[in-house]
Amino acid sequence: MRYLASHAWIDGRVVRDVLLDVRDGRFAAVEPGAARPESGAARPDASFPDAALPGAALPGAALPGAALPGAALPGAALPGAAGDHGTVRLSGLVLPGFANAHSHAFHRALRGRTYDDRGSFWTWREQMYEVAGRLDPDSYYALARAVYGEMVLGGITAVGEFHYLHHDSGGRPYADPNAMGSALLAAADDAGIRITLLDTLYLTSSVEGAPPAGVQRRFSDGDADRWLARVAELGEADHAIIGAALHSVRAVPADVLGKLAGRTPLHIHLSEQPAENEACLAFHGCTPTELLHRHGVLGPGTTAVHATHLTDHDVELLAASGTGVCLCPTTERDLADGIGPGRRLADAGVPLSLGSDSHAVIDMFEEARGMELDERLATRRRGHFTPAELIAAASAHTALGWEDAGKIEVGARADLVAVTLDSVRTAGADPAGIVFAATGADVTDVIVDGRPVVKGGRHTAFDVPAALGVALRSLRLPDKPRSSREGA
Amino acid sequence: MRYLASHAWIDGRVVRDVLLDVRDGRFAAVEPGAARPESGAARPDASFPDAALPGAALPGAALPGAALPGAALPGAALPGAAGDHGTVRLSGLVLPGFANAHSHAFHRALRGRTYDDRGSFWTWREQMYEVAGRLDPDSYYALARAVYGEMVLGGITAVGEFHYLHHDSGGRPYADPNAMGSALLAAADDAGIRITLLDTLYLTSSVEGAPPAGVQRRFSDGDADRWLARVAELGEADHAIIGAALHSVRAVPADVLGKLAGRTPLHIHLSEQPAENEACLAFHGCTPTELLHRHGVLGPGTTAVHATHLTDHDVELLAASGTGVCLCPTTERDLADGIGPGRRLADAGVPLSLGSDSHAVIDMFEEARGMELDERLATRRRGHFTPAELIAAASAHTALGWEDAGKIEVGARADLVAVTLDSVRTAGADPAGIVFAATGADVTDVIVDGRPVVKGGRHTAFDVPAALGVALRSLRLPDKPRSSREGA
Repeated sequence: MRYLASHAWIDGRVVRDVLLDVRDGRFAAVEPGAARPESGAARPDASFPDAALPGAALPGAALPGAALPGAALPGAALPGAAGDHGTVRLSGLVLPGFANAHSHAFHRALRGRTYDDRGSFWTWREQMYEVAGRLDPDSYYALARAVYGEMVLGGITAVGEFHYLHHDSGGRPYADPNAMGSALLAAADDAGIRITLLDTLYLTSSVEGAPPAGVQRRFSDGDADRWLARVAELGEADHAIIGAALHSVRAVPADVLGKLAGRTPLHIHLSEQPAENEACLAFHGCTPTELLHRHGVLGPGTTAVHATHLTDHDVELLAASGTGVCLCPTTERDLADGIGPGRRLADAGVPLSLGSDSHAVIDMFEEARGMELDERLATRRRGHFTPAELIAAASAHTALGWEDAGKIEVGARADLVAVTLDSVRTAGADPAGIVFAATGADVTDVIVDGRPVVKGGRHTAFDVPAALGVALRSLRLPDKPRSSREGA
Repeated sequence: MRYLASHAWIDGRVVRDVLLDVRDGRFAAVEPGAARPESGAARPDASFPDAALPGAALPGAALPGAALPGAALPGAALPGAAGDHGTVRLSGLVLPGFANAHSHAFHRALRGRTYDDRGSFWTWREQMYEVAGRLDPDSYYALARAVYGEMVLGGITAVGEFHYLHHDSGGRPYADPNAMGSALLAAADDAGIRITLLDTLYLTSSVEGAPPAGVQRRFSDGDADRWLARVAELGEADHAIIGAALHSVRAVPADVLGKLAGRTPLHIHLSEQPAENEACLAFHGCTPTELLHRHGVLGPGTTAVHATHLTDHDVELLAASGTGVCLCPTTERDLADGIGPGRRLADAGVPLSLGSDSHAVIDMFEEARGMELDERLATRRRGHFTPAELIAAASAHTALGWEDAGKIEVGARADLVAVTLDSVRTAGADPAGIVFAATGADVTDVIVDGRPVVKGGRHTAFDVPAALGVALRSLRLPDKPRSSREGA
């Protein structure tokens, strides 16, 4: 399959008229300066508007519905697909696929439902636990498929699912002890997105080692060996990497942390809240970052999530070890976590990635510009990150173990995200500044590993908003009293 | 015309099944608990999906295109319009119209173009002046019509245009000295939005009284009397109020401030930047707020814009005088102004309104939740404002002199904004929490003074994204070097 992108994001800048040859899900050629079609009359906001380019072998490809000859989703092969003969024009700006490096899929159910909580992160957590208590493998599959569908509609081509909801509501393993993890893997497959399942070790509910209580019992395997045995049964797939996570220094005793050291990718929640730091200092006499360093957890395969409240020594340890940091700006703003030291980390050489985490928002443009804008609020200065740095953080597939994705270059996985330059938000924008103008609603087309998954703003496999509605309503979360039929 | 809203925002809460009778542009009846149609099969994301309700007199109203009998835009009366006989069903959640209380329409041209400015508010201002220098009445009309179109697509039914670009590029009055202001009034009319033209007095470029230089000469009338004479020639209209503005304590000498005292609505930029406060303290020996108080500028008809950096005494003066404050969260974040004292002002009794100001973003949902979310970043606590307070601030038409708008109640101007509850963003949301889930892209239908201006997410009068593109390209702003044909 060949694509002609009028603008493409290559090596951190916008390049015009790029021909992209995709074979076996990878870029076989990336050729800037391709001839532009003579006609300037194509509707700019139409996706795949006209495939009849000079040299295109199939004039018929210009017909709606036939614009993607050879395009095939699993189980959705187009009748009459004609193979790799056409050239499809991608209008707007074509970006690499985004990587959502930190997701808890089920938190999506809380969007717009926690506003009258006048408390803190910790009282928000009570509501999150309430949702966690309602899920089983079937309902989790349905919710996750819809949420991953929402992600891919916004240009996300790989998700890191930080997965700790392992067991049944009594804390007992399901008949298939990986029933929940398998539901997530299937959900990603059916949503057309790659997944890194960051299967999470969770043993205690406090730094001091308190046992899990209530819904937390669903999270715990009891000990690290049982976690290891369970996770060993999870199989990888073309679309799936099995990674690991330590929930946090609250949830894993210090002498167990090292048991997962060296696994890759390995993620861990780190210093999202000052209270975690204080408890760790009081109990271990060091910061959470220092504790991870002491137990060999830091390293190039490790990503620390949040890293909001760090000492200078913490930053040094992360940088010296090659550890990455995943910032989650929209969640950190929603949960009142504070503003993380993004620029300080980047200056120290720490690789940055981004995640939508609690899914109060799923929009990698918002995450990327939030990294810059919240630093502006903290410093009262502008211009901390270049657009290239922001797009790179939003496309950091390496944090999820997909070393060959996130860039438009020969040999890389063929992920593409077309963003319209002709919406009310993006009209007139300099394409190079798109990260400050676009939202996820401006994504028109998404290609994952060479397969078109979103066309014209719609998922090719299912109706995502409808699936979200069905999955969320089935959880029977109560609306607030003020939205009941008081007026009737 | 009658509307049946499945959910409507009335008195700060969500009420189900509300019948809204609209006559002569106002609500003649607001009746909760109206009968719901038996059919539950209507496509939830379709706008005006089926008008054939029990009691609807015109079965034919269910036909697409005939769904709004009697609907008429200026110059766009529907052939065969049948008067007030049908009932149109509005799906989703129906909100009052938003008021964008602070706009500089031409700043829209800077969206996505100032990112590599590593400076401050003051260096950003240089770029803004560059755009200001390029406009004439024709190009300003075209740009403003498109920007106001973008606003109404997002549910904004009235805009406060803080207008200081009065004269030609040499600083000379146009043949019609109100050519620029008249262009804005016409643009609003043609975009279907109400406007309060806050015609701005600008005389000096510093607190110390330096004369305007460069493009600033376009802003200045020379003295207050000439400003008064010019503004007296501006005529009000059904859709337009002529208000006044003092640009700031930088741009109006202290002894002139009082010349506009008592005019209403009267707006003024206040304490957006610490540098303004410092200069005012050094020159006048008091804060900008104290200076306004001293000269009688504060009062119930006055709105201070930004009010980011205030002393406790400033807050007391604003509250005691009944002065309102217009926060501009997305601009204050973009320009690194800092986080204003929203909650402190509200607690003191100061009426709050919201504006998109520089139009880095035009989305009143973003402004409203930004008011809460940035306060979370500042305090590390959640839950500062209720959704009712946020929606009220986004609908504060009184700050623009439209005392009879912004509420769904009998006698009020019939502004309505329908927001889908079935997009990827809003699916599954509690309608009462919509301000934390929706974006402007979720607005499907907008009615201004009883006239449908947006249907199914499109403006009824013109193609807004295309108009934005034409207007912005005509300014010939250079794209950044990195977006040139380097690859070609």
